[in-house]
Amino acid sequence: MKAAFYEGNRTFTVKEVPTKELGNDEVRIKVAFCGICGTDAHIFHGMMDQRVSIPQVIGHEMSGVVDALGKDVTGFKIGDKIVVRPLDNRLEDESDKGFSHIAKKLKFVGIDSEGAMQQYWNVPSFIIHKLPDTIDLKVAALIEPLAVACHDVRRSDLKAGEVAAVLGGGPIGLLVAMVAKTTGARVIISEVNPIRIKMAQEMGFEVVNPIETDLLAYITEATKGALADVVFEVAGVQASLDIMTEIAGLRGRIVGVAIHGQPKPINLHKFFWRELSFIGARVYEKEDYEAAISLTNSNTLPLEKLITAVKPLSDIQSLFEELDSNPAGMKFMLNCQE
Amino acid sequence: MKAAFYEGNRTFTVKEVPTKELGNDEVRIKVAFCGICGTDAHIFHGMMDQRVSIPQVIGHEMSGVVDALGKDVTGFKIGDKIVVRPLDNRLEDESDKGFSHIAKKLKFVGIDSEGAMQQYWNVPSFIIHKLPDTIDLKVAALIEPLAVACHDVRRSDLKAGEVAAVLGGGPIGLLVAMVAKTTGARVIISEVNPIRIKMAQEMGFEVVNPIETDLLAYITEATKGALADVVFEVAGVQASLDIMTEIAGLRGRIVGVAIHGQPKPINLHKFFWRELSFIGARVYEKEDYEAAISLTNSNTLPLEKLITAVKPLSDIQSLFEELDSNPAGMKFMLNCQE
Repeated sequence: MKAAFYEGNRTFTVKEVPTKELGNDEVRIKVAFCGICGTDAHIFHGMMDQRVSIPQVIGHEMSGVVDALGKDVTGFKIGDKIVVRPLDNRLEDESDKGFSHIAKKLKFVGIDSEGAMQQYWNVPSFIIHKLPDTIDLKVAALIEPLAVACHDVRRSDLKAGEVAAVLGGGPIGLLVAMVAKTTGARVIISEVNPIRIKMAQEMGFEVVNPIETDLLAYITEATKGALADVVFEVAGVQASLDIMTEIAGLRGRIVGVAIHGQPKPINLHKFFWRELSFIGARVYEKEDYEAAISLTNSNTLPLEKLITAVKPLSDIQSLFEELDSNPAGMKFMLNCQE
Repeated sequence: MKAAFYEGNRTFTVKEVPTKELGNDEVRIKVAFCGICGTDAHIFHGMMDQRVSIPQVIGHEMSGVVDALGKDVTGFKIGDKIVVRPLDNRLEDESDKGFSHIAKKLKFVGIDSEGAMQQYWNVPSFIIHKLPDTIDLKVAALIEPLAVACHDVRRSDLKAGEVAAVLGGGPIGLLVAMVAKTTGARVIISEVNPIRIKMAQEMGFEVVNPIETDLLAYITEATKGALADVVFEVAGVQASLDIMTEIAGLRGRIVGVAIHGQPKPINLHKFFWRELSFIGARVYEKEDYEAAISLTNSNTLPLEKLITAVKPLSDIQSLFEELDSNPAGMKFMLNCQE
């Protein structure tokens, strides 16, 4: 079978390797598609060389089909369409207080262990979700990032009739906006890239370019002075951190979706004055995966429009390079059987 | 009657003035005691000269007795012991979404309008809370800051069996710690000032001096690695903002009690990694006042120990000066009838 190995130094090599022996509690997955996550791009850029084990197969935004079952596995059959929730919490202990998805010794499958960018992938069965037969496997490779969005929106407690601002209209921002809209809230996306603005508008979103339009004035007008009930900080830039506290209204909830490696200046006075909350969100829980599967299968979200390019696994090197040279691109995906 | 006027330039003058005519919806209060709030000290230091109307009577941490009733006032009788909840929300509108206590056009009585540092004070009846007859009026002048603490703890959703860290053992920190303890939580105070440490210990609190003891190691040990469920950031210094994200465990809630005038660097990565929340808290709501009155009347909290000095209203100038020269002092109070 073919497997793509990250070799360090912005390099992948695709090799022929034997399929691995299947553990008793494992499922062998015939991987269909695997999307490239921002984290995968970080790995490609050498930012996580201390965490991965070079050479390593990475990847976790995947879909596939059950190809073989370990002898202790129940609940699956060969041919089932599946996705993997790549959180290995087997080292969870009491001090994690039941928060399995962020347990202190959590291992992220596809980073801390072998990932999906290969033809066949052996995975412990407890992290596999069965999909409806009707689901499209290409779109199903978006279930993992969609589950992130489901988790972010759940953490925000967004309700019908409320107003949510999504700062940043990249792939995660659009997914958050899509899920936010399903609650019945009014969703306003802030994005500066004209290509992304156009794409968001074509998806039917209300979009503001904060370089051309005063975002605070826009949201003030749109809400008759009440400002946003919820803000999703997805862009991860200081301008976004500065405006988030301006546009959030009384008791506004700000969800931190972007990852900030360094401490950043935050206007704490606004948190005091308006009793704002800042809510950290990381990955997803089981129920977010179930919500994402159900939303994907409903075919009500414009998920397919997020897929910028799909290339064969053998072209992985050029796909990662294309991703770097196309900043307006959304979701890049590998067909792991080609 | 005597009234103390802030004249700007760190100066109060006490003058004989006539009592004012009573409005139909007002109550004339014979002020018993009035504590000095951090905000009053800010006013004395000239930091709020643009907000107050010099010369102005200030003060809002008060207790008193009903002296006369406007003709439309019901629910009170002469001689009733009372406190004032100094939030005038008469300009509240729909865009405040029912959050009366932080309404955008809220006026703070005693800052934005005349306060309690005088013998008699006319106040609209809707902001007056009746006290039990059994209550001590000196301790009752602590109800306002105690209501702040009740609000902070309520915002934290602290529960029995949880662990709360209170960063800062000044008057508000100790009040927060007292209220936090009533929930059944374990409360750990972090404080650097030896006099304040001693006072907190004498009140029965578990206190850590982070200069001598590694606070993170202490809390790690105390919680078997789970870290704090709730952190109250009361000290308002960068060291406190730095440690708050270290000592909060998975899904930990950090309540911002201190007021930060300028943006401050915050470790947002910890908010992501541990799904922390930062919760802004400002003043109090009606139910916090009711809780504070009930706690005060129960005589179960060591409130009286917080009172460092009580001086006659006529000595207001020397009391504010003493407050500046005694950084380990807790609550300074005026007897408004002397």
